[in-house]
Amino acid sequence: MKATAKAHTNIALIKYWGKRDEALILPTNSSLSLTLDGFCTTTTVDFRADLTKDRFMLDDQPVEGEAYRRVTKFLDLVRQLAGKENLFADIHSKNDVPTAAGFASSASGFAALAAAGTKAIGLDLGNQELSRLTRQGSGSACRSIFGGFAEWEMGSETDGSDSFAVPVAPAEHWDIRVAAVVLSSTMKKVSSRAGMKRTVETSPFYSGWIDTIPQDLNEIKQAIHAKDFDKTGSIAEANCLKMHATTLAANPPFTYWHDTTIRVMQTVQEMRENGIPAYFTIDAGPNVKVLYLPENEKNIETKLRSIPGVSDVILSKPGQGISYI
Amino acid sequence: MKATAKAHTNIALIKYWGKRDEALILPTNSSLSLTLDGFCTTTTVDFRADLTKDRFMLDDQPVEGEAYRRVTKFLDLVRQLAGKENLFADIHSKNDVPTAAGFASSASGFAALAAAGTKAIGLDLGNQELSRLTRQGSGSACRSIFGGFAEWEMGSETDGSDSFAVPVAPAEHWDIRVAAVVLSSTMKKVSSRAGMKRTVETSPFYSGWIDTIPQDLNEIKQAIHAKDFDKTGSIAEANCLKMHATTLAANPPFTYWHDTTIRVMQTVQEMRENGIPAYFTIDAGPNVKVLYLPENEKNIETKLRSIPGVSDVILSKPGQGISYI
Repeated sequence: MKATAKAHTNIALIKYWGKRDEALILPTNSSLSLTLDGFCTTTTVDFRADLTKDRFMLDDQPVEGEAYRRVTKFLDLVRQLAGKENLFADIHSKNDVPTAAGFASSASGFAALAAAGTKAIGLDLGNQELSRLTRQGSGSACRSIFGGFAEWEMGSETDGSDSFAVPVAPAEHWDIRVAAVVLSSTMKKVSSRAGMKRTVETSPFYSGWIDTIPQDLNEIKQAIHAKDFDKTGSIAEANCLKMHATTLAANPPFTYWHDTTIRVMQTVQEMRENGIPAYFTIDAGPNVKVLYLPENEKNIETKLRSIPGVSDVILSKPGQGISYI
Repeated sequence: MKATAKAHTNIALIKYWGKRDEALILPTNSSLSLTLDGFCTTTTVDFRADLTKDRFMLDDQPVEGEAYRRVTKFLDLVRQLAGKENLFADIHSKNDVPTAAGFASSASGFAALAAAGTKAIGLDLGNQELSRLTRQGSGSACRSIFGGFAEWEMGSETDGSDSFAVPVAPAEHWDIRVAAVVLSSTMKKVSSRAGMKRTVETSPFYSGWIDTIPQDLNEIKQAIHAKDFDKTGSIAEANCLKMHATTLAANPPFTYWHDTTIRVMQTVQEMRENGIPAYFTIDAGPNVKVLYLPENEKNIETKLRSIPGVSDVILSKPGQGISYI
């Protein structure tokens, strides 16, 4: 009863920003992401009759505390689904997501855990069912079941049965690239979860955010299908600015941006003015991700590395969905 | 038929951000400001029968173009009110508002012009009437008629008859200080007027801005009357962040912030965490103004001057309204 699965992280082009149900992880808006080749988690789950509790090793280190609790809580769902509540697992995870890059390793982490865990326990789930299950471990992880471009449909049911990711276009459809710009200082005072919650509860701009998502999603899907880079990039950039704007109106207000964040944003906009198509997106943190086309890779990387306060630039291509090893 | 008047600029604690009538300069929300001692304009208007057009000298330099047209257009209103349409003026203005400080010199400029112009032509207007007239030259200037804290009541009439500033508390009521933090780079790509217009027309957050102003105004007036610095400062800071957030959701999105803007904001927040009460506010540009109490002046100035990218720090006390010389 052992299985190994690999999953890649993803970067949201239309952001997931707000929960309507904290326990089931149901979002207040649909979102859309690109799965990335460069950053992955490989996880082996081994259900063994001799264990009395789960054991979780991450990069060969035993994990306890909150991270351990999230993993066992998620495996409880897997056990429940399989009707094997008293079976515990040895879990070994290897993270190839550089933490400093500011990607949520929980996206690739829970996608790999869900795939390996369900297979190990003998469940044979389709990708849609797997995505719905994965969502309950980490919201954005439900998109990492699929490669390339995927949309997390928010759904409307209170039990979450219609809230899962669906494929929009595979990785092979369009080779656009993402440069993860790593800042020297990556401190954030408000966690993603807390920031999302405070914004939903107190920002007078939150309804404006929700109201405009359907149009953003509709237009970016058209742009992706048409391989229209400027349209895709400008919708993603505007959507990210809009998300970050909601936090400035929260009570108390906050921002994830540092001075270097602004400097990278301005550099990207200057590159565009100089004829190099590039767009940025920013998750709930100070790091910036830059979208670009393969032919501009050298130029973009050099330019980004020259910005004061930038410590690293990590390049990535579109990646595949989950795979079993 | 000659008169000289002096007026000070003001800094908005609750921002004026949006017009409901471009020609009459009627705002979409009420605003509140503190008139500042440190920055003023002194203007002499001399109506002379021998002139066939207005002449405008600013700091001993003849002014033409758009600035000249705004001044003569405003004097047309003064002439109309006095029934003396064919009388032209020699206008001499002296600006003691350092341009780099990022204060709208149009606030002190139009307040001084309105006061000197109406007196020179023989009108005897009360301050309320003068404020209503001044508004038509430059919106924020209508608040500079009064010293200390003043509120620009947006009004509801389509002719603007109920849109003017009223005093909230005189300069003597409360000695809070403002440090104008001047950045080395003060470039802005979108003018205040254009930015305001684009935001009103395209930002999905604009209604959230409008909806929350009455409460901000109500609370800050209570805080000013109670001389509650933390409450006054935190409302002003949150209001400014909210205003700037509206621009991030405009189409196309934009921001007035530079990297140094963020650095100054973070320094102010760090000062607070270290027990020095200080709050920031930012107009439609990259410069930051810091509110503080007199006893912390030395400390605040030293700290602000040490921020990389800051070229100057100019301190000011609460100032008086218009005066005649």
